[in-house]
Amino acid sequence: MADRTGGLWAWLAAVAMVVFAVVPAHAEDGYELWMRYDADPAAKVALAARIGEVRSEEGADASIVVAMAELRRATSGLSADTDRATLLGTAASPAIAALRLPLDRVGEDGFILRSMTLDGRPTTVIAANRPVGVLYGAFHLLRLAQTGGLADRIDVIERPRVGLRLLNHWDNLDRTVERGYSGQSIWDWWKLPGHADPRYTDYARANASIGINGTVLNNVNASADSLTAAWIAKAARVADVLRPYGIRVYLSARWSAPVELKETATADPLDPAVAAWWNAKADEIYRAIPDFGGFLVKANSEGQPGPQDYGRSHADGANMLAAAVKPHGGIVMWRAFVYSETDPEDRAKQAYSEFRPLDGVFADNVIVQVKNGPIDFQPREPFHPLFGAMPKTPLMIEFQITKEYLGFATHLAYLAPMWEEVLVADTHTRGPGTTVAKVVEGAVDRHRLTGMAGVANIGSDRNWSGSIFDQANWYAFGRMAWSGSATAQDIAREWIAQTFSRDLAVVAPVEAMMMASREAVVDYMTPLGLTHLMATGHHYGPGPWVSDLARPEWNPVYYHRADGDGIGFDRTRGGSNAVAQYAPPVARRFADRRTVGDEYLLWFHRVGWDETLASGRSLWGELVHRYDRGVAGVGDMRRRWAALEGRIDAERHGEVRDFLAIQEKEAMWWRDASIAYFADVSGRALPAGTRAPARSLDEYKAISHPHAPGHH
Amino acid sequence: MADRTGGLWAWLAAVAMVVFAVVPAHAEDGYELWMRYDADPAAKVALAARIGEVRSEEGADASIVVAMAELRRATSGLSADTDRATLLGTAASPAIAALRLPLDRVGEDGFILRSMTLDGRPTTVIAANRPVGVLYGAFHLLRLAQTGGLADRIDVIERPRVGLRLLNHWDNLDRTVERGYSGQSIWDWWKLPGHADPRYTDYARANASIGINGTVLNNVNASADSLTAAWIAKAARVADVLRPYGIRVYLSARWSAPVELKETATADPLDPAVAAWWNAKADEIYRAIPDFGGFLVKANSEGQPGPQDYGRSHADGANMLAAAVKPHGGIVMWRAFVYSETDPEDRAKQAYSEFRPLDGVFADNVIVQVKNGPIDFQPREPFHPLFGAMPKTPLMIEFQITKEYLGFATHLAYLAPMWEEVLVADTHTRGPGTTVAKVVEGAVDRHRLTGMAGVANIGSDRNWSGSIFDQANWYAFGRMAWSGSATAQDIAREWIAQTFSRDLAVVAPVEAMMMASREAVVDYMTPLGLTHLMATGHHYGPGPWVSDLARPEWNPVYYHRADGDGIGFDRTRGGSNAVAQYAPPVARRFADRRTVGDEYLLWFHRVGWDETLASGRSLWGELVHRYDRGVAGVGDMRRRWAALEGRIDAERHGEVRDFLAIQEKEAMWWRDASIAYFADVSGRALPAGTRAPARSLDEYKAISHPHAPGHH
Repeated sequence: MADRTGGLWAWLAAVAMVVFAVVPAHAEDGYELWMRYDADPAAKVALAARIGEVRSEEGADASIVVAMAELRRATSGLSADTDRATLLGTAASPAIAALRLPLDRVGEDGFILRSMTLDGRPTTVIAANRPVGVLYGAFHLLRLAQTGGLADRIDVIERPRVGLRLLNHWDNLDRTVERGYSGQSIWDWWKLPGHADPRYTDYARANASIGINGTVLNNVNASADSLTAAWIAKAARVADVLRPYGIRVYLSARWSAPVELKETATADPLDPAVAAWWNAKADEIYRAIPDFGGFLVKANSEGQPGPQDYGRSHADGANMLAAAVKPHGGIVMWRAFVYSETDPEDRAKQAYSEFRPLDGVFADNVIVQVKNGPIDFQPREPFHPLFGAMPKTPLMIEFQITKEYLGFATHLAYLAPMWEEVLVADTHTRGPGTTVAKVVEGAVDRHRLTGMAGVANIGSDRNWSGSIFDQANWYAFGRMAWSGSATAQDIAREWIAQTFSRDLAVVAPVEAMMMASREAVVDYMTPLGLTHLMATGHHYGPGPWVSDLARPEWNPVYYHRADGDGIGFDRTRGGSNAVAQYAPPVARRFADRRTVGDEYLLWFHRVGWDETLASGRSLWGELVHRYDRGVAGVGDMRRRWAALEGRIDAERHGEVRDFLAIQEKEAMWWRDASIAYFADVSGRALPAGTRAPARSLDEYKAISHPHAPGHH
Repeated sequence: MADRTGGLWAWLAAVAMVVFAVVPAHAEDGYELWMRYDADPAAKVALAARIGEVRSEEGADASIVVAMAELRRATSGLSADTDRATLLGTAASPAIAALRLPLDRVGEDGFILRSMTLDGRPTTVIAANRPVGVLYGAFHLLRLAQTGGLADRIDVIERPRVGLRLLNHWDNLDRTVERGYSGQSIWDWWKLPGHADPRYTDYARANASIGINGTVLNNVNASADSLTAAWIAKAARVADVLRPYGIRVYLSARWSAPVELKETATADPLDPAVAAWWNAKADEIYRAIPDFGGFLVKANSEGQPGPQDYGRSHADGANMLAAAVKPHGGIVMWRAFVYSETDPEDRAKQAYSEFRPLDGVFADNVIVQVKNGPIDFQPREPFHPLFGAMPKTPLMIEFQITKEYLGFATHLAYLAPMWEEVLVADTHTRGPGTTVAKVVEGAVDRHRLTGMAGVANIGSDRNWSGSIFDQANWYAFGRMAWSGSATAQDIAREWIAQTFSRDLAVVAPVEAMMMASREAVVDYMTPLGLTHLMATGHHYGPGPWVSDLARPEWNPVYYHRADGDGIGFDRTRGGSNAVAQYAPPVARRFADRRTVGDEYLLWFHRVGWDETLASGRSLWGELVHRYDRGVAGVGDMRRRWAALEGRIDAERHGEVRDFLAIQEKEAMWWRDASIAYFADVSGRALPAGTRAPARSLDEYKAISHPHAPGHH
């Protein structure tokens, strides 16, 4: 080295040492999610060279601005010595219009990424019909780069499978989150509208990066206060932050709000004063939030008020609200998650019974939001029979990203395989191939409104989702709402590459963990089609013995029906006949013990303890086997993860390691408590070679969790 | 530059650019508190040169390990080319023992920092009697470096003013925080003991850096569940993290815990079964936490159970608990914050009346914890009359760091001047100069137990305290508990230097803001000795009109007593005679309108609206003047802060800017609502030239905050 540069060299080296030493202190806490870009300077320099000069003729548009900023962030503002360029824009830009790209194929939100030579410069074009599509394209380009999929020449055309890609926050106004396991609500209502936490911007970035374009800010069990002027101002400030990222704000509406706010005497949807109140309220909201998305409503469900309180139907209620937002371009999402307080009918049948007769009655800016299964976000449910059964009504599917029934944040369960299982299920409602996905995509009945909603797992925790692996569920929800072709496995792989490493030595074991994780949870919680076996209230841990709750369908014993002879809920013609709500080919498959499959066996059938299953084991033996398999599955995950020590940064590795230890202990608890109970109720001895539960049934029954999170 | 190094140069420059570009993304969110060390590489290199080789013969001790690690962190591990060294240790280390330092002068927690030449090397010695003292010394060295006070040769001897320097967390087991305005509890109980958030370590570092040596983990309004085996295990895991930092864990004990846990039939302290239960419970806790500090108790206060429920005294209760922890070296901190549900006596007098007769009756491991003033953490109160009045009983002072009554996290109020005002107050109980500080330091009556408690303002918010400036209150509490000589102003200055900048252009205006801030709050909330004027429940915003609460002393009207003639609480001989609880010279000063001073005027006196004050204004005119002055003071802070744009990083500058805007708006609200009310009740017109309130009194009365934080 030349002497005269030595001092400067030493200084620079010192700077580099200092800075590198400082960076890791809090860089590995998960805050960056899947948008870590490359920590490796060489890769960053290469990406900067590839992106080159970032150009657009629409630099005045807020979405184009953030798209350009994201490309610069990914390359840390490095301007590499290159003649390459990236050109962003819509057809409103002459430079893009001149390219005559097939933008008619990408719809409102899609984009085209194409390598072209413009004025002699190798250029990556990111084009779309709207600025937000350009933003999605920029994020897709960065995703390709991060996952190693950025070929030297690219030609990508993407458009999303559904139009409404929404998060549902079950966030209360006091900042608690119902069924939230990642701290408080990220909405710091108290400081709004005066202060908008910079974190809202990172929330918007993360969501836009996976195509999410709307967010319902408050809990479906809504407070009337969320519709007061003070709260509209708070929502408006959030909307201002989210707008450049193409994310519209929606609110959950409490049906009885005008009465509770003492501004009307009734909430009867056919009362003109009520309609007038909602019209004026919609006007007020749209003055503050010109692109307000609309209302989400949980009505006449689990104690919530609704139009039935006045002898009116769900459609009467939805249509009245829809009329209020229609002049502003808003929509109403009306939830079909209902079951009666008095109806003795099988709970799994009630939503179908109540909503199917309303098909064709809803206004054209109403979409009915249906949970993936007929009960309530259990580890495994068959698809909801409403899918395909309301052809004249757009239906959006509601998934739960937060893991109310799958172990909260400390159990690792990658949910995309569960969602995929539902989406690929064939409803047969218009012949074979009428999958739930096609119904939801609106392809079957050509609906204008289409959508997927995910109950958010986002909170104030530094890592956003309560655990690193729960970030994958947020990510996967967005990617599945966008892409009709990416599988759960594809999505796992791209998430791992962006979150941990592209090294196959990391990707392969982590992918194996993720892909097996949900099935392990099913095995140690609700094997063989059992469901709703959890403890009361907080829904954490086993409670198959619970039988003393006020309503029959709140009790686990209602669902498993175990006694000395057998176990399972007969939903065939001889039982509740819930199978009849499915199209005949599906109904036949579910109704037949030979074709239903072990995964839904006890959901649809009552089976004797000693009957032999396909495995050759008795039902009782198979049940115990599955519980053991679930525990073993968690053990496998622990071992795989332990072997990754040193390949994953210490902070994230340590968190996952701790959580897997908790999960294994609790999988054992589920297994032991459930086996102890079913042995007792069945009067069966444990199969030979089975490890006995560690504690007595009474001891398991005595376990309580008085301060569990998410239960408000 | 030499050509052959050009490529490497470019690479290094690129690396530096990348890294510098990445660092600021989330580096300025306040997480690093006052431990930012030097972002400036040159200063870091200089500090590394000064510290040199870090040596100790006690590298096996956990506290020495963290002390050495902190020195390395401050210099980012740079080993500078220097022959200097830093030698750490206790007299157990031969190298330290050989120096014959006057360690007899520093007590258990103090330290000596001394520049010496050892074996020909310029060495900074950090010596103490216990490893934790060495840790405090290391932090002090770094504080000197960060504040520009590290002279080339140093000779510092420090010992703390009190032995117990404790945080009181009012944290509930469901992770809510009573009177918490910075998110949830940092204790993620649900994940404990399986997972200890890495943040606990940073909590420990921050507290150790300012000398805090104990923390009460749970709310004084305690749940019995905190004493179950499950929760003891959680507390033990936290204790394991805190131990190397010299921080002992304490728990708040619910008096009725054994009854609520169904393990005893009574909680009578004189019942042997009750004493046996607590003995066994203490044994159980000490098995899990060998250095457990002891119990904090709020008994027979605001509805909490206590020994008086069984006809026993506070001393009966405290002594029974004290006996349980005594064999293990534990203590009991018994709160004197009591007022009766039935006693019609002036609330300000009740704690004194109840506790003074118990002087000399408490066991020797009991310390009575007394709030700084006789009511409840109001913006200004005279010192509590118990200080100096219980010579045979050690008293620790309780300050509230969280700002329940001073505007939560969005109002800037530096509390150290308020605490200082109380500490320097002269009780005259043993003649002139018997300050509250001397009483608390145990110097007056030579008590072994001495302490200060601060109700923590720490939560899960990224910035720990809800706002950047509230970090200063945490910092100042620790520093005041340690140092008997540092003034509120000294502490503000050192906090600013470490948190923002050593540049006088920053320090001077920020110091001016801080030092004026609390007085501004007094002016716009409770001027002239008024007190307890806030809205009900959440305690946010004005509510001087509130008169309908169940107990008289819950109502603001109880405190201000305004009517058409005058305002104020007569606590002279002609009134409640609360002045008589103070030593005669103090009582005389407070009782005399001419000597009481405007700041306590209406605390002790009832004054006619038209009476003339020292200012020459009428009382009514002065009241309005003070409200206006408070609002103007916030305006001053806003202007000073706005002028610092560009000198403070954008993220922290923006947060403070937003909060000051909120504060100014709300100071105006306090001023307007209070003036509207007092004008109404007094029947006085506004003084000439006074701006009329923006809204009507009824409108102010109608303001509600149904989802305010901290109110559980």
